[in-house]
Amino acid sequence: MPITANNPNRKTWIDTPTNTDFPIQNIPFGVFLTRDDVITIGTRIGDTAIDLGALHQLGYFEGIPLTDDIFLQDSLNDFISDGKKTWRLVRNRIAEIFDAKNNTLKKNKEHCKIVLFTLDEIEMQLPVTVGDYTDFYSSIEHATNVGTMFRDPDNALLPNWLHIPVGYHGRSSSIIPSGIPVHRPQGQKLINGTEKPIFGPSRLVDFELEMAFITTDANLLGEPIPIEEAEDYIFGLVLFNDWSARDIQKWEYVPLGPFLAKNFASSISPWIVTLDALEPYRVAGPKPIKEQLPYLQYEGDKSFDIHLEVAIQPEKAKETVVCRSNFKHMYWNMSQQLAHHTINGCPVNSGDMMGSGTISGPTPDSFGSMLELSWRGEKPVQLDEGGSRKFIEDNDTVIMRGHCEKDGVRIGFGEVSTKLLPIFKK
Amino acid sequence: MPITANNPNRKTWIDTPTNTDFPIQNIPFGVFLTRDDVITIGTRIGDTAIDLGALHQLGYFEGIPLTDDIFLQDSLNDFISDGKKTWRLVRNRIAEIFDAKNNTLKKNKEHCKIVLFTLDEIEMQLPVTVGDYTDFYSSIEHATNVGTMFRDPDNALLPNWLHIPVGYHGRSSSIIPSGIPVHRPQGQKLINGTEKPIFGPSRLVDFELEMAFITTDANLLGEPIPIEEAEDYIFGLVLFNDWSARDIQKWEYVPLGPFLAKNFASSISPWIVTLDALEPYRVAGPKPIKEQLPYLQYEGDKSFDIHLEVAIQPEKAKETVVCRSNFKHMYWNMSQQLAHHTINGCPVNSGDMMGSGTISGPTPDSFGSMLELSWRGEKPVQLDEGGSRKFIEDNDTVIMRGHCEKDGVRIGFGEVSTKLLPIFKK
Repeated sequence: MPITANNPNRKTWIDTPTNTDFPIQNIPFGVFLTRDDVITIGTRIGDTAIDLGALHQLGYFEGIPLTDDIFLQDSLNDFISDGKKTWRLVRNRIAEIFDAKNNTLKKNKEHCKIVLFTLDEIEMQLPVTVGDYTDFYSSIEHATNVGTMFRDPDNALLPNWLHIPVGYHGRSSSIIPSGIPVHRPQGQKLINGTEKPIFGPSRLVDFELEMAFITTDANLLGEPIPIEEAEDYIFGLVLFNDWSARDIQKWEYVPLGPFLAKNFASSISPWIVTLDALEPYRVAGPKPIKEQLPYLQYEGDKSFDIHLEVAIQPEKAKETVVCRSNFKHMYWNMSQQLAHHTINGCPVNSGDMMGSGTISGPTPDSFGSMLELSWRGEKPVQLDEGGSRKFIEDNDTVIMRGHCEKDGVRIGFGEVSTKLLPIFKK
Repeated sequence: MPITANNPNRKTWIDTPTNTDFPIQNIPFGVFLTRDDVITIGTRIGDTAIDLGALHQLGYFEGIPLTDDIFLQDSLNDFISDGKKTWRLVRNRIAEIFDAKNNTLKKNKEHCKIVLFTLDEIEMQLPVTVGDYTDFYSSIEHATNVGTMFRDPDNALLPNWLHIPVGYHGRSSSIIPSGIPVHRPQGQKLINGTEKPIFGPSRLVDFELEMAFITTDANLLGEPIPIEEAEDYIFGLVLFNDWSARDIQKWEYVPLGPFLAKNFASSISPWIVTLDALEPYRVAGPKPIKEQLPYLQYEGDKSFDIHLEVAIQPEKAKETVVCRSNFKHMYWNMSQQLAHHTINGCPVNSGDMMGSGTISGPTPDSFGSMLELSWRGEKPVQLDEGGSRKFIEDNDTVIMRGHCEKDGVRIGFGEVSTKLLPIFKK
């Protein structure tokens, strides 16, 4: 089925700012609370939020096999379970409804009043109930930087890294949407040269610039997903800030991996941009340095050219962009990650989330964490306003943005913006 | 509120086998499918399953604040959200209904027909929808054995082990109830002395004898749970077989921890035995070897005397008990695990599951995995029938059982029984 929603020449009758992340070619999916305190699934064109629950009740999705309440839910999980064909039908239909040449909804002022919202009339929620969240470690630049800093510059990559899309399980319960602030975590830390840990606030709170993909129901217990089918099970992507406490991490992570250093918060952008919408931005990924096992070998372009940036905004000051990276740098792509994740028969369900790992690029200004940007704190990062930073300070807001651009069409993710509050006090 | 359900002198009018794991003092909670294809929450006395949904509809829980459909659900999550006071009221009431001196239900044959089932009329399901699953590593004997085998016998414990209840996140989607078979996983392995991994079936599939506790909604993002409140948020426990593929694990686990070596399956016993029911079996835990940070210090007995055993049953052969251990050996208790898990503000919700880690005791016959019992395969374990085992072979069934016993009352967990099938073929 063609993705007619991606037609680059389509204009919309919705008033749309130039250079918006959300032209009519995007049509992302999210969940929001409306001015009437109703939770609904919606989309966004320009700065207009569209209530898909209401649109469906008014009959605009006639002919598409959807249950009556599919959009009147507090998560996208059930809609995502409907599968890729349905997502495509719905996205194509939304493009038609809001096409500049179609005035059926446009001329119906009653319907418009029910369906359309300005952004200040809604409150974005988590788009999915995340059953399981996995975080990968798939940027060779990031893995090399970390290995260089903490192990051996001559053997920065561990022996398994070029063979395995290394990943580990994360905590679903602390995944939060953009806008929810996070307290600086407390925990155990070992001061260098001592043997007894101390307890207190983490002094090395960091962001990690990541993207995450959301899956649909993919397989049953025991069944691997072949790599050539993997993209059928990917609904879309969000920006992802994998908050990290480096001092807690260093003391706790051997031998079972990071735990409290990560699970205090993971922030995502609230609009899921579909894999369909990203179709025009496919690019070839990095060439494998070592031969990969057959179950990880793929054909075609499986990477995506998504420009990413991270800004730090101190309290009452202007923000400074501290990192510019790109999703295309990932050494292991999403298809490889999903094929690997299920090669042992691990079941993947609707609403599961898989993070890319920190997306560092090849140049020092493209590193995706303060750990790398400040090189363990040795090179503080200068901000335009508010001093310099080795790590994130109380009341700083970290903002991540991402977009693709080609042939005059820009498909963006909006932002994930999270303020770091001081430690929690009862 | 007193736990009258625990009265050791109470008899029941339900016909109960001697030495049952489920006397009227137990009253565990589970979810089952009935002969009429209805999913309901239930309990069990002897070999009789009791439909709590039907019992509630018939008015037997009058006076207890419960929503009408609280037991007519496919998981215990909402009931667990109701909190400890409600669990206790319900358990106390069930004890009264089935007390030998109370013939209200007993004499009502119509009601009995609706409410009571023999075990072959029901099919046990997963008792909860597990949001997040965490596995700890809290047995000092197990950690010492692993450290001795793979690192240094003189420094078997890693430096953080005596300070941190080490834990990591696991996969919720592959948690299955007793009786569901598991396929031998495939994956990457590195043959000793080579540099390039190969792909194939795991040759070192193992069980891990664990117990797991199920939580209720405990805290909001950012808020730690003080150790003295931790038990308020523990609903109950199950037996837990944390299936492991040692060859996959060895190659993949550095630096982010076990992943595909674990997430192909985790089996639990279907009846959750409440913490209330275990109250009479409290014992003191091991004395700390090193001083623990204040947030991990506790008063009173926080360990439980639960006898555990593991049997291996080859295809068409008699089972052999290969391990006898006890939950009381755990160095870190559940209160410490929960206080640690939330000290950074990580939210814990109803239905979350936390595994103890492999429960090894001090003697070689109490080690909780084949890795330890066969000492890396160096000492095959002799079975009464079916040869010997270094690890688990295709079509072997692994059975774990557990019970407490004191003053003539035995509170048991039933069993978690799982057959290992050959690799999955399409």
